Amino acid sequence: MEIVRREEIMRILDDYDEKDITIGTIGSHSALQILHGARQEGFRTLVICLKGVEELYERFGVADDILTVNDYREMISDGFQEMLRSRNVILIPHGSFVEYLSAEGIASMRTPIFGNRKVLEWESDRRKQREWLAAAGIKMPMSFERGDEIDRLVIVKLHGAKGGSSYFIASSPEELKQKLRDIDNAYEIQEYIIGTRFYPHYFHSFVRNRTELLGIDIRYESNIDGLARITPFMTEKIEPSFVVTGNIPVVARESLLLKILHVGDGVVSASRSLFSGGIVGPFCVELVCTDTLELFAFEISARIVAGTNLYINGSPYSQILFNESMSTGRRIAIEIKEAIRMDMLHQIVY
Amino acid sequence: MEIVRREEIMRILDDYDEKDITIGTIGSHSALQILHGARQEGFRTLVICLKGVEELYERFGVADDILTVNDYREMISDGFQEMLRSRNVILIPHGSFVEYLSAEGIASMRTPIFGNRKVLEWESDRRKQREWLAAAGIKMPMSFERGDEIDRLVIVKLHGAKGGSSYFIASSPEELKQKLRDIDNAYEIQEYIIGTRFYPHYFHSFVRNRTELLGIDIRYESNIDGLARITPFMTEKIEPSFVVTGNIPVVARESLLLKILHVGDGVVSASRSLFSGGIVGPFCVELVCTDTLELFAFEISARIVAGTNLYINGSPYSQILFNESMSTGRRIAIEIKEAIRMDMLHQIVY
Amino acid sequence: MEIVRREEIMRILDDYDEKDITIGTIGSHSALQILHGARQEGFRTLVICLKGVEELYERFGVADDILTVNDYREMISDGFQEMLRSRNVILIPHGSFVEYLSAEGIASMRTPIFGNRKVLEWESDRRKQREWLAAAGIKMPMSFERGDEIDRLVIVKLHGAKGGSSYFIASSPEELKQKLRDIDNAYEIQEYIIGTRFYPHYFHSFVRNRTELLGIDIRYESNIDGLARITPFMTEKIEPSFVVTGNIPVVARESLLLKILHVGDGVVSASRSLFSGGIVGPFCVELVCTDTLELFAFEISARIVAGTNLYINGSPYSQILFNESMSTGRRIAIEIKEAIRMDMLHQIVY
Repeated sequence: MEIVRREEIMRILDDYDEKDITIGTIGSHSALQILHGARQEGFRTLVICLKGVEELYERFGVADDILTVNDYREMISDGFQEMLRSRNVILIPHGSFVEYLSAEGIASMRTPIFGNRKVLEWESDRRKQREWLAAAGIKMPMSFERGDEIDRLVIVKLHGAKGGSSYFIASSPEELKQKLRDIDNAYEIQEYIIGTRFYPHYFHSFVRNRTELLGIDIRYESNIDGLARITPFMTEKIEPSFVVTGNIPVVARESLLLKILHVGDGVVSASRSLFSGGIVGPFCVELVCTDTLELFAFEISARIVAGTNLYINGSPYSQILFNESMSTGRRIAIEIKEAIRMDMLHQIVY
Repeated sequence: MEIVRREEIMRILDDYDEKDITIGTIGSHSALQILHGARQEGFRTLVICLKGVEELYERFGVADDILTVNDYREMISDGFQEMLRSRNVILIPHGSFVEYLSAEGIASMRTPIFGNRKVLEWESDRRKQREWLAAAGIKMPMSFERGDEIDRLVIVKLHGAKGGSSYFIASSPEELKQKLRDIDNAYEIQEYIIGTRFYPHYFHSFVRNRTELLGIDIRYESNIDGLARITPFMTEKIEPSFVVTGNIPVVARESLLLKILHVGDGVVSASRSLFSGGIVGPFCVELVCTDTLELFAFEISARIVAGTNLYINGSPYSQILFNESMSTGRRIAIEIKEAIRMDMLHQIVY
Repeated sequence: MEIVRREEIMRILDDYDEKDITIGTIGSHSALQILHGARQEGFRTLVICLKGVEELYERFGVADDILTVNDYREMISDGFQEMLRSRNVILIPHGSFVEYLSAEGIASMRTPIFGNRKVLEWESDRRKQREWLAAAGIKMPMSFERGDEIDRLVIVKLHGAKGGSSYFIASSPEELKQKLRDIDNAYEIQEYIIGTRFYPHYFHSFVRNRTELLGIDIRYESNIDGLARITPFMTEKIEPSFVVTGNIPVVARESLLLKILHVGDGVVSASRSLFSGGIVGPFCVELVCTDTLELFAFEISARIVAGTNLYINGSPYSQILFNESMSTGRRIAIEIKEAIRMDMLHQIVY
């Protein structure tokens, strides 16, 4: 697949009718919120769904147009892209984009995408994520090259596998060796930092030139969050897994908030030196807070995260900033609206 | 006690002044929300409280009339019922109704009740619950007939006992045998499925002919939710119990939402074939989500659940559907209001 | 430091321009909410920050004036106090006041403080807390005088140390003896009651003469809340710690609410007999609920608690009482506003 040059996207955008923009996304992850927020700000909305899934968006009544596909890869075809452009669609990427379209698929799309599409490449590569966090000056868990080096609890993350279903923990080299016996994938061995987890929802506004904190969540993972509750009373032992199934709201103590904002600031400024344009719009840095109140980052999500779904009717933090029910989806729509008004749309779309 | 025929309730309703309906309920469980929501929609409100408990409803200022009783059974008397009817009361049942009045007591009441009073009979019988869920095509944990058959973690639920205080878990036939030694009650042995728990709040609207998702919670249970947190650091071992003491908000990942809605749809359509009229209004199906993202149902609550108390100021899902602070209590009031306007009140009251 | 007499504060208040009051606080703990709430009610706002921390309050845009200090003790100087008085500042105390200024420092301040400044002395002394709770008729965990008396799980709280970092648990006299070996501080040995934790946010309004429930949270503590989730799968054992890092929202079952309100009522009425004026404004009683639905109190916070930060956009309970987004910060501002209007300011400021 051919990578689309930025200039071409800019030319496409030149032809868009900025008074008739449609906000579009893939029907999954945080689409309800993205579409609902776009509607609140007066945009037309469009969602692309796998056949059968459109029912969800019909029932919540958030989309003006629903397009169904048998395979998300159909979205990448010239005809589909042409159709999206004819409707002045700006696509809002979320966590399912890379999963369904691949980083290369996204890079090849001839439709304007909100935010810097280069971030998706950085996000989908664990090594690049570490490079990014290091450049941002953010503390990270230790990474172990070899299993026999481990001297503490570790979590092993297999590459090329989906999310938490392929994570496992080990507390000794022997345990690790045994668990890796049948593994063919490449993997990363990361120190497991013990503490409270915080997943802050940042929004870097190019238009307002500031990084905002819109909410924080805790991931609710299966089986671990059910298993840990019951294991102490079981005689058998079951291995934990870490598949995200939902999110629980949380606020951080106020004295942590500036540290959390600085983590976001670091990610934004590092992004500018790592890739042209830097990060624009929503992102998340997965944090753990130790009992000495130090924050460690173990991942970046360089687009809207699903934890924002908790705050479709506003969060404590977005309430302070906006004094109304401000979801991250709605915040994206406001950024686009303000960019149009200030003739800055070309700077927030890639 | 004599079961009231539906025709009689319909005749009573014929005599009601539909422009002067009072929404009434028992002072417990989710009454604050039911009364608050009714007020928001312009209804008069009435609450029936055990002596002493009226203070709660006075302090929150949600009731136009507060009636106190020494025993909830007084509600079933002819005089009390007559008095309710004279005020055009429609009762909203919740989780304490069956507990305080018994299924037969409710069936004998000569006051209109919102929703199908037949569901309370189905809800209060574990075997009927399983029949209902099976008819709905919903996956359930295995049920074991005999204790010596168990080959996995199980939860044992004693019949005729209240909620989670009489639940216990066992991981082997020996452990189970020992724990059942002094038990006289009948009991059910259910596979304990390990995963994340989701308690979705459905609302089946007869007027709008649709099933809505208004929120999701996690039950906060004593002692288990305190015990599991501390047991790993204790030398003694204490048996867990599962008494619901509160609720914690949660959202499910968006790709689970359609599955969750289909669980609700299944319950609604099965209800129509199992008992005339089917289910109307709020209900909940208690779900657990495994790390392969399969949902298992272990219970039905065929009326408003207490977890909805989290969302008196709206939930992420109700925000998308209604764009204002929509509690389940308020949703009930809207259903009644719309039914009155469309001359459908006789179809949502039993 | 000299303790300021109440009459002097009253004279200072006489000189204040009640049409131009500024709400001020220290930049930490729950200041965002206090300032945001004050603004919502039309007050000017001022925050006093350690150098560097002002950035947080700038970025959330909640303060009309930001004063920076190198050490919070600067606040106690005559010049600083004079400057606060010249701006008609009423200070709102929160959890960081005693920590940063000491109880004596606060008692010496010649600036009007919202609420009874005597409560801070009662709050900062564990023995006085127990006396207060006992006078309120509230059940408490057992307190053990000597380590060799313990016959159950206990939590040991070191005096003179900050919060949960110095708490530890023990299940036997031997374990306790070993853990106390290197401890020089005084300490309290408290029975560890197992159950679900509830931290209710009360507000005692002097103006409206009532005690309100504005929200409930669960503290999110490091390392325990991360450690307990993973310990069952570890081979090594790590000691838990209990440092509050954030808060998670919760509601209590409705049948507990009146008990919870009565706990608050008990605290209010006991306060009146223990110190002149009694408690005014927000407070919290840290509760644990057993599986027999009994509530035990293990602490009092006699001012706004950080858990209220969850409800800057309103809680289920504040929604019922006020029908709008009512944070505890905003509730404080309303109390001051109503007191001004009714000429009662002298009774809620100390």
